[in-house]
Amino acid sequence: MTEQLAVAVLGAGGRMGAEAVKAVEAAEDLKLVAALGRSDSLEALVEAGADVVVDLTTPDSTEQNVRFAVEHGMHAVVGTTGWDQGKRRSLAALLEDNPQIGVLIAPNFALGSVLASAFAAKASRYFESVEIVELHHPDKVDAPSGTAVRTAQLVAAARAEAGLPASPDATTKSLEGARGADVDGVKVHSVRLRGLVAHQEVLLGGPGEQLTIRHDSYDRASFMPGVLLGVRQVASHPGLTYGLDGYLDLND
Amino acid sequence: MTEQLAVAVLGAGGRMGAEAVKAVEAAEDLKLVAALGRSDSLEALVEAGADVVVDLTTPDSTEQNVRFAVEHGMHAVVGTTGWDQGKRRSLAALLEDNPQIGVLIAPNFALGSVLASAFAAKASRYFESVEIVELHHPDKVDAPSGTAVRTAQLVAAARAEAGLPASPDATTKSLEGARGADVDGVKVHSVRLRGLVAHQEVLLGGPGEQLTIRHDSYDRASFMPGVLLGVRQVASHPGLTYGLDGYLDLND
Amino acid sequence: MTEQLAVAVLGAGGRMGAEAVKAVEAAEDLKLVAALGRSDSLEALVEAGADVVVDLTTPDSTEQNVRFAVEHGMHAVVGTTGWDQGKRRSLAALLEDNPQIGVLIAPNFALGSVLASAFAAKASRYFESVEIVELHHPDKVDAPSGTAVRTAQLVAAARAEAGLPASPDATTKSLEGARGADVDGVKVHSVRLRGLVAHQEVLLGGPGEQLTIRHDSYDRASFMPGVLLGVRQVASHPGLTYGLDGYLDLND
Amino acid sequence: MTEQLAVAVLGAGGRMGAEAVKAVEAAEDLKLVAALGRSDSLEALVEAGADVVVDLTTPDSTEQNVRFAVEHGMHAVVGTTGWDQGKRRSLAALLEDNPQIGVLIAPNFALGSVLASAFAAKASRYFESVEIVELHHPDKVDAPSGTAVRTAQLVAAARAEAGLPASPDATTKSLEGARGADVDGVKVHSVRLRGLVAHQEVLLGGPGEQLTIRHDSYDRASFMPGVLLGVRQVASHPGLTYGLDGYLDLND
Repeated sequence: MTEQLAVAVLGAGGRMGAEAVKAVEAAEDLKLVAALGRSDSLEALVEAGADVVVDLTTPDSTEQNVRFAVEHGMHAVVGTTGWDQGKRRSLAALLEDNPQIGVLIAPNFALGSVLASAFAAKASRYFESVEIVELHHPDKVDAPSGTAVRTAQLVAAARAEAGLPASPDATTKSLEGARGADVDGVKVHSVRLRGLVAHQEVLLGGPGEQLTIRHDSYDRASFMPGVLLGVRQVASHPGLTYGLDGYLDLND
Repeated sequence: MTEQLAVAVLGAGGRMGAEAVKAVEAAEDLKLVAALGRSDSLEALVEAGADVVVDLTTPDSTEQNVRFAVEHGMHAVVGTTGWDQGKRRSLAALLEDNPQIGVLIAPNFALGSVLASAFAAKASRYFESVEIVELHHPDKVDAPSGTAVRTAQLVAAARAEAGLPASPDATTKSLEGARGADVDGVKVHSVRLRGLVAHQEVLLGGPGEQLTIRHDSYDRASFMPGVLLGVRQVASHPGLTYGLDGYLDLND
Repeated sequence: MTEQLAVAVLGAGGRMGAEAVKAVEAAEDLKLVAALGRSDSLEALVEAGADVVVDLTTPDSTEQNVRFAVEHGMHAVVGTTGWDQGKRRSLAALLEDNPQIGVLIAPNFALGSVLASAFAAKASRYFESVEIVELHHPDKVDAPSGTAVRTAQLVAAARAEAGLPASPDATTKSLEGARGADVDGVKVHSVRLRGLVAHQEVLLGGPGEQLTIRHDSYDRASFMPGVLLGVRQVASHPGLTYGLDGYLDLND
Repeated sequence: MTEQLAVAVLGAGGRMGAEAVKAVEAAEDLKLVAALGRSDSLEALVEAGADVVVDLTTPDSTEQNVRFAVEHGMHAVVGTTGWDQGKRRSLAALLEDNPQIGVLIAPNFALGSVLASAFAAKASRYFESVEIVELHHPDKVDAPSGTAVRTAQLVAAARAEAGLPASPDATTKSLEGARGADVDGVKVHSVRLRGLVAHQEVLLGGPGEQLTIRHDSYDRASFMPGVLLGVRQVASHPGLTYGLDGYLDLND
């Protein structure tokens, strides 16, 4: 029988953490060795003999959690936000001293969402027009969504690199807001509708054809396949990887 | 054998008119008796013995064309724009003196579009949220489209009559334009994309469910079934009817 | 202050019943006076002074529950299955003796789904082609879904009444199953996909245009607005009404 | 000023050929030096000094056209069907003797369609479920479409390589045809609807999420950007390339 990977979850009392605990327990090749909450000591990770630590805590504790893991020879998969460039650079330096250890920090663990953004950026070099429509429940306070803004930035960068001009637009007479928000030259439209969760469409158009890449996120469970993929592959990706797409095989 | 209806097309040299000529010729129950251009005399309608006149001309000539038809005992199906309330009132008065004659003036002959707007208005009374996304080719100069504005107005009126509040929206932090244009309290988003023709989605949301009514118009041919339906039914609808929905059986 | 309607829920221990209890409690114009489970006596309904009884029980008990309610002067809103024609006829006879009492039996309380079916049937008279695609989670055992079969039957009946031929189809060379199932001459396609809940698209096509009516059901909460609408209106609809569309104002 | 590439079109009398002639004439970096029909001699290609020959002829003449081009030092971009493995192997041998010459044979020049298939295959390794819905006009004789069959085969091969089992499906009670056709274990559904042209959706589902990749082809013009991309890049891709995806930069 294959040996199971020993996995610890930090932030097990939160909603994402609770999902991760369930997902690790349900996976035959993984063994949950610790599920720690806010008041538990990190020493428990060492006692439990964790191979991989999943950090789903809060921005104020994630950095010390991950540094503790690395310093004690454990890989880490991190879904907590707050890892700005300074913190990432400092972590990367620590990893140089621990060259066998891998850390994955992923702002988004939904495989479908990550693939959708990557495909949109690749495809946008081959189409005259591109716009984004994102749709969420009406309790969301920001518009556009963070994911839509990042997708627009990736698309804009890909088009700039390929030397493409802006999408054509002959609009001369418009109601305010009709043509959406402008993110690096890419139009983004935000729909808010009761009943929805989180959805995004990238619309690409050329003469006589349209390509649409749509992602629907129905619930938090959608993050777990990405978390598990990270847990399984982090040991074979030493150093710091930022973004789940670094683990996806998009290139063949 | 059933007798064919004698149909004349005015504006036969234009693009819509040319389509109408083809459509009438292809219909077994109709007989094309005249296809007149800009310089032809209206007297030809009388000589040809037209039962129904299809007017697809220009705003400056449509009124006199239709009045001529009515005064000579012919029904009229009109797709030309420019029929403001004053002109319609004056035509209605003329029709009172010709009580057996019917005239249909339709701003939109696409059956699917007319049905989509009617359904959207009906459904909007039963949903907490409603927004509209319209999508067109990038050479269009106005945003939102006229059809989307009219649909939003119909929806807004139906909701006001049912005593519904505005769709919920917790947005507090927004890029300018992200949340679309506001038409009578209904959000409308305008996408412009090379390759598209004319498309509209009405999105309705309530707890745990969504209803989407989408219309795609791929080419001018989409107007012809509506024109033919008008031609066949105008004789049994004496007086002035404004809007093709007046001829559609939406009420059983 | 307006008097609240006194509502009792039968089957309060089930999943739908529990949702209904929450929905009634949350509604300002309604007052939950009883929430009964399998072992509770129906006499409690009388003691509680219920105006309206919501039956979300099981096929073997629903008939006696509803008859008890009617005989004790209470209106009933019924979501339980199993009401075949014989049982409905017998209930209708009982209601003739209680002419002030209303009963609504609804196979489907999702407003969006009921509206989608009604719209599809209306629209199908005006389009050359119509097909249905339904999409569900992969644990569903039947294909097509019951809702899709009913929608296809409604569409087929509407087209037959309007004298329309079958949708055109030139297929001469086909892999088995590619063209879907045939329900009264209407093609129905069943997609099964992890992550989905319950979704249905009716696709209507004519020359140069398409009309799509799509309903997405994301969770059980989607039934509650329909249940509440039934509770509020049942007293003003004496006799037996079968199908929530009988309460929807689709005709203006 | 950059020198223009000299392009000849074979099959210029056909519909695709006529589009190609227009597209080459409209491109500033290309110069149309010959537009030959069925009865023209291939010697005209030499006289015209063509750098690249675009072959949009018929299966019975395409092989000799391409061999003539290669033997006279011209690159070729080929959209004609009929290039079975035997003919491709024989052409590859000829190209070994002309190592500086490139030939692109593409069964599909619609960039969006080629990208959609490539993305679907990549993504299908990360999702539990995948199905395909293709939608065409009702005059099409085969179901599923050739493009849908090829996409299903690519998806099936990618999943097999990744060791994935078949998509889950609990169906035990089904109307014949409801669950679609089976192509290498992937379900494919074929919708036929008046008004449509050529459309395809690949639906991918995992726990709590869905990814949809849709391509809409509205008219023949959609092939031209792919043809021009081939014309511009063929000289830098010596040897035989089969499939436009060989020229697309999908790997960064």
